[in-house]
Amino acid sequence: MNRIAIIGLGQIGSSLGLDFRAKLRNVEVVGHDKEPTVAGRARKIGAIDQIAYTLPGAVEKAALVVLAIPVAAMREVMTVIAPHLQEGTIVIDTGSTKVEVLKWAEEVLPKSVDFVGGHPMAGSETPGVAGAQPGLFNDAVYCILPAPSAREEAVKAVVEIVRSIGARPYFLDAVEHDSFVAVVSHLPIALSVALMETAAGSPSWREVSRLAAGSFRDVSRLASGSPEMQRDIFLTNRDTVLYWLDQFTRTMQNLRSQVAAGDAEGLTRTLEHANEERTKWLERRVGDIDASTPEVPSMMESATTLFFGDRVTQIAKKAMSKDKKDRQP
Amino acid sequence: MNRIAIIGLGQIGSSLGLDFRAKLRNVEVVGHDKEPTVAGRARKIGAIDQIAYTLPGAVEKAALVVLAIPVAAMREVMTVIAPHLQEGTIVIDTGSTKVEVLKWAEEVLPKSVDFVGGHPMAGSETPGVAGAQPGLFNDAVYCILPAPSAREEAVKAVVEIVRSIGARPYFLDAVEHDSFVAVVSHLPIALSVALMETAAGSPSWREVSRLAAGSFRDVSRLASGSPEMQRDIFLTNRDTVLYWLDQFTRTMQNLRSQVAAGDAEGLTRTLEHANEERTKWLERRVGDIDASTPEVPSMMESATTLFFGDRVTQIAKKAMSKDKKDRQP
Repeated sequence: MNRIAIIGLGQIGSSLGLDFRAKLRNVEVVGHDKEPTVAGRARKIGAIDQIAYTLPGAVEKAALVVLAIPVAAMREVMTVIAPHLQEGTIVIDTGSTKVEVLKWAEEVLPKSVDFVGGHPMAGSETPGVAGAQPGLFNDAVYCILPAPSAREEAVKAVVEIVRSIGARPYFLDAVEHDSFVAVVSHLPIALSVALMETAAGSPSWREVSRLAAGSFRDVSRLASGSPEMQRDIFLTNRDTVLYWLDQFTRTMQNLRSQVAAGDAEGLTRTLEHANEERTKWLERRVGDIDASTPEVPSMMESATTLFFGDRVTQIAKKAMSKDKKDRQP
Repeated sequence: MNRIAIIGLGQIGSSLGLDFRAKLRNVEVVGHDKEPTVAGRARKIGAIDQIAYTLPGAVEKAALVVLAIPVAAMREVMTVIAPHLQEGTIVIDTGSTKVEVLKWAEEVLPKSVDFVGGHPMAGSETPGVAGAQPGLFNDAVYCILPAPSAREEAVKAVVEIVRSIGARPYFLDAVEHDSFVAVVSHLPIALSVALMETAAGSPSWREVSRLAAGSFRDVSRLASGSPEMQRDIFLTNRDTVLYWLDQFTRTMQNLRSQVAAGDAEGLTRTLEHANEERTKWLERRVGDIDASTPEVPSMMESATTLFFGDRVTQIAKKAMSKDKKDRQP
């Protein structure tokens, strides 16, 4: 049995547990959460095989350690587990921002382990075990950001794990990542929250809210996300978030001027442009990412049955050499 | 056979047609659209029984006329149909703003017909017949705004029609309506559009967009709505929309200050407050509206089988007197 330790059993940690247990053979998933009752719920839904009540106990003998915790907790947890990690262990995280996380991994984790940062672009607004679901990552883009020191074998093993849960690996660097997600994830959070606050601040909110339907529900959806996670996002990606908040405000001011001027033509132009851009985005979504992913050799069929062993890198090496043989003419 | 005329076969008009034909007996639904091909598609999906190629032809002999067209087209269409409306016809609309529509109805429609404004709080972002679906209004709040001159019987008939498609009638006045929907419908449109424009304006949008997932999809959803409808909303509800755009910008500036200051406590407070307010809204949604709807006597079981006749008001009167008898001890 190969041990996977999941630290943090919120929506992402628990969903990964469900998928790992369903898709990977010969693995044992050990889960830890700072709230023991959360770990109990995660075990109840089948997200983990057993509970570890301490961080050192969780990572002991683990071939893979998954840090699925808010970004602000990352450095401290790394510090606590560092002395207990076995040589050759792969450590991955699922944090929403990556520049700081990769810096901390470099500073805190021992050189004998491989850190491969990650960020699955999936999830609903329901935090915790209640939001966990099997197949959550199916077809989702999964950002992979290896530490500079991470061995190629470890990176390949992570790619294989990501593929095993149906996600689509995507490589980019941490600065790119944080600036990209500021636009497509963090700015939308700010808008949802500010919409909810604006609406609830209306003196007639109780009556007004009766008319709130699908439009309001969707655009305010992210206001129901985890306040802790959102706070950490804003604090660890501050400058980029501020930049995009300002860009957004400028765009809103343009729209406001068109409304104020009763500029039917200008408004039509803006509304049609936004409409077209969204259609283009929806159309190219799927094809684009697969075409742009840097080639990482697939570790063939057998990979999902035994893609990491007690010493992950050794198995990965074997798989790679088999893979190379397979590709010879 | 009682004739219903639906003018405008977009998402709302076609969906109403589907439901009328499924839920009401002895009715014939005649549809008109300025684009004959649209009317053809509406008939193909079963939203209408037959196509009328002219406005006068559509409303001829109709007991109920439904104006499901963009607000900006409302006055002109009313002017064209006015001389062709039979005495006692009920005219309803489904426009997104109501102050101007009710003013136009008062100015343009003959006194011999009853105008009852309406606004179903339902719909997806897919415009046109493609977005039509049976049951679209099920459980939706349906605002009803009778013209001051509308007879009570006509209002009751409209209530019954609204109930027949599963929607929940809600009475409020036009000024209230327009100010309420500015918060929960029009402001979200502006945010979706501005988000889409901001994101697409990023120099790296092609790469950035690969990471756009559920958060971005939901918050930008309304940017895929009908530009024509959205333009009319902004133009006919201008002052209220501007007021709420400014309120929103103020809220965003507060959030921005907290991010800029790295104010973890303040951010947590804001994020938790928005989260709680959204939970409260979701919880009270359903119960609240039914409790607050002013009582309108139900027109009992038989109503849905023959709730309007050739002369709607006569049938309605009979139903009402029966209703009163039923309620006597």
